[in-house]
Amino acid sequence: MRHFLSLKDYEKSELLEILSAAAEMKRDLKADKAKPKLKGKSLAMIFEKSSTRTRVSFEIGAGQLGMRPIFLSSRDIQLGRGEPMKDTARVIGRMVDMVMIRTYAHERLEEFAAYSSAPVINGLSDDFHPAQLMADYMTMQELGYDDRAVVAWIGDGNNMANSWMMLASKMGFELRVATPKGYEIAPKWAELAKNFADKSGAKLYFYNDPIEAVKGAGVVATDVWISMGQESEREKRLKDFAGFSVTSELLSLADRKAILLHCLPAHRGEEITDETFESCAESIFLEAENRLHAQKGIMVWLDAAK
Amino acid sequence: MRHFLSLKDYEKSELLEILSAAAEMKRDLKADKAKPKLKGKSLAMIFEKSSTRTRVSFEIGAGQLGMRPIFLSSRDIQLGRGEPMKDTARVIGRMVDMVMIRTYAHERLEEFAAYSSAPVINGLSDDFHPAQLMADYMTMQELGYDDRAVVAWIGDGNNMANSWMMLASKMGFELRVATPKGYEIAPKWAELAKNFADKSGAKLYFYNDPIEAVKGAGVVATDVWISMGQESEREKRLKDFAGFSVTSELLSLADRKAILLHCLPAHRGEEITDETFESCAESIFLEAENRLHAQKGIMVWLDAAK
Amino acid sequence: MRHFLSLKDYEKSELLEILSAAAEMKRDLKADKAKPKLKGKSLAMIFEKSSTRTRVSFEIGAGQLGMRPIFLSSRDIQLGRGEPMKDTARVIGRMVDMVMIRTYAHERLEEFAAYSSAPVINGLSDDFHPAQLMADYMTMQELGYDDRAVVAWIGDGNNMANSWMMLASKMGFELRVATPKGYEIAPKWAELAKNFADKSGAKLYFYNDPIEAVKGAGVVATDVWISMGQESEREKRLKDFAGFSVTSELLSLADRKAILLHCLPAHRGEEITDETFESCAESIFLEAENRLHAQKGIMVWLDAAK
Repeated sequence: MRHFLSLKDYEKSELLEILSAAAEMKRDLKADKAKPKLKGKSLAMIFEKSSTRTRVSFEIGAGQLGMRPIFLSSRDIQLGRGEPMKDTARVIGRMVDMVMIRTYAHERLEEFAAYSSAPVINGLSDDFHPAQLMADYMTMQELGYDDRAVVAWIGDGNNMANSWMMLASKMGFELRVATPKGYEIAPKWAELAKNFADKSGAKLYFYNDPIEAVKGAGVVATDVWISMGQESEREKRLKDFAGFSVTSELLSLADRKAILLHCLPAHRGEEITDETFESCAESIFLEAENRLHAQKGIMVWLDAAK
Repeated sequence: MRHFLSLKDYEKSELLEILSAAAEMKRDLKADKAKPKLKGKSLAMIFEKSSTRTRVSFEIGAGQLGMRPIFLSSRDIQLGRGEPMKDTARVIGRMVDMVMIRTYAHERLEEFAAYSSAPVINGLSDDFHPAQLMADYMTMQELGYDDRAVVAWIGDGNNMANSWMMLASKMGFELRVATPKGYEIAPKWAELAKNFADKSGAKLYFYNDPIEAVKGAGVVATDVWISMGQESEREKRLKDFAGFSVTSELLSLADRKAILLHCLPAHRGEEITDETFESCAESIFLEAENRLHAQKGIMVWLDAAK
Repeated sequence: MRHFLSLKDYEKSELLEILSAAAEMKRDLKADKAKPKLKGKSLAMIFEKSSTRTRVSFEIGAGQLGMRPIFLSSRDIQLGRGEPMKDTARVIGRMVDMVMIRTYAHERLEEFAAYSSAPVINGLSDDFHPAQLMADYMTMQELGYDDRAVVAWIGDGNNMANSWMMLASKMGFELRVATPKGYEIAPKWAELAKNFADKSGAKLYFYNDPIEAVKGAGVVATDVWISMGQESEREKRLKDFAGFSVTSELLSLADRKAILLHCLPAHRGEEITDETFESCAESIFLEAENRLHAQKGIMVWLDAAK
């Protein structure tokens, strides 16, 4: 049995298998030929943080696969009253066929997975957001990018940045990470990614200047500056991230056909201007839709790996 | 593609088509011959206010049609964290086949609909509650009333009163609206209804005296005096609405076979006495059940209009 | 039509029928031959308190039976705004085929049931937790215990203790209840159980000393000392329950093959030590899983009794 907690635990060939299954299911769905590949099975979705895309995409995707999704917010279950993850894992793992968790500390996910008899999927943790990155790479593939792409990450050295590091270093493409000083990627993840890059041929560059990172890039990716739980740092962050906003001016330095990715929600006037956002709406909402398809790929793959 | 945001956007013939489909599906269900007419499709239900009847009726109704319903409270999705309606609409509209929204400002609904690639149904806004009115007219039809009915609305000039204005002025029946001074229907909706009435032959009368309105009426309708969000006005409203309670005495002035409609929840001792409520329970709970059937009619009609 | 509000309303033969159906469905599920016995029907699940096991087990179980489950927390429906139970019951009872309620006062359940046209299942009230006890007896059966068992209840004279009294007095086994002084079972339930015991041959003993109760027992059962809603009594209760913790030392006085039951969540260091909990994890999590199977038995039985 395998879990899907971070891209760091996967081989490139496995990620490509998942994406290939996802693409096939997307074509089938559009052709009205979707197959309920996991009919009669069930998916528990545990949310310790609020969510739109993760919630809707997993619930609709599971339904399209014939699964029964069950939405559990921490308000509604005993986790919210302090039941240890390992107890919840042993109860839920015996009743359902797969579990998706959105939580804070990545260690909570790992503890759940260690005690669960059902595969566990990371729906966002403080360290990683691998389901999002599968949708991002699927979007890149659809728009003509592959492991020869040059991707610029502009913003916080957060779970999305960590996940881009894992994706690049596994797939072998070039990733340029531009973060403000003090918001760099945690050294342990940067080191790990460099090890993977040695094998894959990925090129990883780190900047404190968005202009350096974005020059000629084919894909520009960004995310909010203030994530859930960081609201009290708002003033400081707005100041520290000055100059890291993706404006049309900044974007004009990228490749002239460059696409923009944003995992949403977007905060116009902060990490992105309204003008840039709306002019790039096509790739951004395609990326959002691909959460649905990519995650179906993950679920089908995990079920087959049982 | 059509949305279902207000009865003002519909022709009488369209409303009758929806009601006819609803009645047929109700008969089929009672005969244990329900058909999953929207099998494999999905319905997102977004609630920015709490709900019993709207929630249960849409979720069960969608299920009976073979749809996968997904319940999204604003606590659980990013809307609660301030994501613009137009972004949520573009994400969710790409993943589901239909959307129902219960919200505050009617403009939020209209913004969502403008950006959604899936049909949107109003599950209650500050201005209108068209799904409820379809259930109300269905109940009238079942109990022998049609466009020759005389309906008295006793209470607040709120979203329910606005919706009765739209229903009457489209269908062509007589509506007498009795509100306390200061709680009249907003002029813009009254004017619009009068325009529709010119075409349909509906008669619209406005009173500040419930006795005038109720005399000889075949249908008496009321609603709570303090809607969600108005709790701070409670004391003032209780005083202002004195005399507008539907008592057996008031009801005795209506037609002797008159039926009572109430969209629930009821506040006994305020807009209605316990005695009146319980003696009219049959029509009231039939009206509640008809939410289920009427809304199935709406969903099937919208799907066919795509 | 029958409701399932307390074991006190059931005959031993009926409880055994339910358990037999549950066991058969469990075997079928494990053999991948589950049958959707209630296909197309719907279950409303109303929660006025949070829950993990009740929620997941009813929702997954209903789904396996082919039902559409609908989760209603009191935050999301009008019950939370004070709508009378009897009105909610008449609305929901007309739309769904079965209702499960987790609430506070047992009288709320009884009021709902009195007005509901669909069977009602108790998912936990201040007085009883009969669905849990069905899972407990099913676990006992699977592990070789029957109406000749000797069961020791160590802890609070709460809804679980009441329910054990009902189970023992209906089934006819020996139950020894050890509670601290001041936390004894309410006299009205103890009296009622004694009446049932006269017929069934059950032996009921009451102690204020856990050592007396546990001696030679085949089954030891416990529960948290501080239930939901009692958080303010925490300090006093921790003091009053001193000595009632299920330690390996206490457990060593039971039968050498004794099993431990705990309805979860567990508070290690309070009613049970971590060592005892983990050494008995097999029976505890089997008991949790059996919620799923036992409740399917209840639902199928109630549907057949309509």
